[in-house]
Amino acid sequence: MQQIADPFLYTLLLIFVCAKLFGELFERLSLPAVLGEIAAGVVMGPFALHVIVPSASVESISELGAIFLLFAVGLETHPRELINVGRTSLGVALAGVVVPFAAGFVYVVLHGDSPQEATFVATAMVATSVGITARVLGDLGALQARAAKIILAAAVFDDIIGILLLALVAGLASEAGVEWQPLVLLLAESVAFAVFMIFIAPRIIRRMHGRLRHVTTRNASLVIALAICLALSVAAEKIGMAAIVGAFFAGIAFAEFAPELGLRPQVNALSEFLAPFFFFVMGAQLDLRVLTPKIILSVAIISVLAILSKVIGCGLPLLREGWRTALKVGVGMTPRGEVGLIVALIGLNAKMISEEYYAVVILMIAVTTIFAPPVLRLLFRYPTFAESELAKSPATAAAAAEPLQ
Amino acid sequence: MQQIADPFLYTLLLIFVCAKLFGELFERLSLPAVLGEIAAGVVMGPFALHVIVPSASVESISELGAIFLLFAVGLETHPRELINVGRTSLGVALAGVVVPFAAGFVYVVLHGDSPQEATFVATAMVATSVGITARVLGDLGALQARAAKIILAAAVFDDIIGILLLALVAGLASEAGVEWQPLVLLLAESVAFAVFMIFIAPRIIRRMHGRLRHVTTRNASLVIALAICLALSVAAEKIGMAAIVGAFFAGIAFAEFAPELGLRPQVNALSEFLAPFFFFVMGAQLDLRVLTPKIILSVAIISVLAILSKVIGCGLPLLREGWRTALKVGVGMTPRGEVGLIVALIGLNAKMISEEYYAVVILMIAVTTIFAPPVLRLLFRYPTFAESELAKSPATAAAAAEPLQ
Repeated sequence: MQQIADPFLYTLLLIFVCAKLFGELFERLSLPAVLGEIAAGVVMGPFALHVIVPSASVESISELGAIFLLFAVGLETHPRELINVGRTSLGVALAGVVVPFAAGFVYVVLHGDSPQEATFVATAMVATSVGITARVLGDLGALQARAAKIILAAAVFDDIIGILLLALVAGLASEAGVEWQPLVLLLAESVAFAVFMIFIAPRIIRRMHGRLRHVTTRNASLVIALAICLALSVAAEKIGMAAIVGAFFAGIAFAEFAPELGLRPQVNALSEFLAPFFFFVMGAQLDLRVLTPKIILSVAIISVLAILSKVIGCGLPLLREGWRTALKVGVGMTPRGEVGLIVALIGLNAKMISEEYYAVVILMIAVTTIFAPPVLRLLFRYPTFAESELAKSPATAAAAAEPLQ
Repeated sequence: MQQIADPFLYTLLLIFVCAKLFGELFERLSLPAVLGEIAAGVVMGPFALHVIVPSASVESISELGAIFLLFAVGLETHPRELINVGRTSLGVALAGVVVPFAAGFVYVVLHGDSPQEATFVATAMVATSVGITARVLGDLGALQARAAKIILAAAVFDDIIGILLLALVAGLASEAGVEWQPLVLLLAESVAFAVFMIFIAPRIIRRMHGRLRHVTTRNASLVIALAICLALSVAAEKIGMAAIVGAFFAGIAFAEFAPELGLRPQVNALSEFLAPFFFFVMGAQLDLRVLTPKIILSVAIISVLAILSKVIGCGLPLLREGWRTALKVGVGMTPRGEVGLIVALIGLNAKMISEEYYAVVILMIAVTTIFAPPVLRLLFRYPTFAESELAKSPATAAAAAEPLQ
């Protein structure tokens, strides 16, 4: 009841409507809706039309959006399924770190820049950001596919490797240099957290579950699930992992009882409302004015390297499972995100990389983010030509089909 | 993926857990959960333990909480039911404005203060804030009771009267004095908005409804409902009404199709997560240090007047429907809120009321807010002694029972 219209509510309205209209438009053009939501941010954001400048409150909302998105994804992921693909995913994650790093390092050195600069650029090309892939797979209803499980499990390993690399480059940039003791502690903490959440937490939830009826709070199961989701997001951040990985862990801990407790539609509603702000803000941060002709070539080369190296690195360990699964996982692991940004920022602040390489890294992140959704959609939705041919013979078609569940 | 834990997420976690723990504790003490959430804010907030100081982002979240709360309430309110109680509710709203105003004015003048000061204090005692009553009735599953419909409809009238009074006192406080032309425009706008939303909007939704299947966006009905909820909240604020009244209108417009579109559990999930922040922040704003002995007496008298005048004013037009319904509606209309705060603030800034009266008004708002939930709960949940006696004779018991739906 104020005389002046609240800019916060008005901004939320504008962002939500723009994101959803662009999403609808993209869907009709056979492009992923999430790309439309990012495009809405680019177009309406501070660096293009300048209609909407996300405030701190909007950024907080967008953060919650990413958290509930991964919580919802976790709710559809039974821990046993993650464990089943565990060894495979570890190989995928490791090769998916080594190959992009090597590609980035060699390119920058061949380009005539220092090995130190090469180290930062290469590190920024390593860590996958799984949010956008999770959303695309969710939109396609493909979260139960084996490739999706491998991606989600590999993303957990990738995140653990990512925080170690982040600590390493932070050490390189500091005057004290790299200290190994905190690094080992960090590794132990994050591995322990992941092991606890995947192997032990689901059992605790199973025991707690019977006692839920003694709680008088209305809709107690949702309230407790939300509290645990927030708690694990905070815990993950405290350790140094991504908050969304904590939210994902919270989801898998509840996955077994999610149908019985009716959690999925409720958490989906939260994610449906909040996640568009995440993707819009992601788009709004993209400043296309950095794109001078000199930089465009570097961006193109580094982006192609970033995409190919991840597709090859993550795909190679999976060739036994068929090139299609390998390709799905490789493309699903392509998007880079916050870790790359932070690595580049640390390098820039310590004057270890140039402003040009900083811009190149940011745009590489944008390119990989925009590249993955439409390709994933093609791979998961339409059978390839080879598979259509196979499909003419029923026996081989069954063998070629992606095993669901 | 930041090294430093995010204070925003951590604050959200603390608030959510504290609010829900206090809520659970209050429920076990047979007190309303919502009172526990407010108490959590008082205890943990900046004026007591100082554990949690809500940031701008948290206040934005709390605002969204109030909006989705009233949206959820609207979804359970068919427009026809509001129209049915329309005339009755208008009487309730009008008498519920006149009696508290008169009581406040007479008391301040008898107390020896100026008529101008009396006008401001009396105006601050007028407008009902329906959020807390809506939550209590929702928690009790009593939103379908006739008394609940009367309260919700009267709250709409009350809000229209409230914005007129607000404009009036703003005029009194300004040097230009009261200008009648904008006042008439304000009245026309808000009445037109309410009439449009109650009589015309539901028909538009009915027509739109068939076309929803042509929208390709996933979960299109929820997305469109949320967009309309935000849009009407902004529109209500633009006119000068409370944003939550706009959200309530959006709810009633969708009420008819809410079951078919599965909107209620989804919107309830949003409100379940966000509304506790609203009540916590409400409590956190309460500074109990203002309570000097001198002020306590004034607060007690004004609060008793505020409660009695609203119960009598809103109850009187309903005596034909039985004293029980009259009492339910009267108590349900008791909580005061933002309008009272703003009136007091305008008066204070224009030096038209003293700092003491400003504190008294704020505490009166707190007292009425805390008074209503437990009393409402008693009235709606337990049959009174008289009714238990009646219940022994089956014929009269049926007549005495509150008609549901």
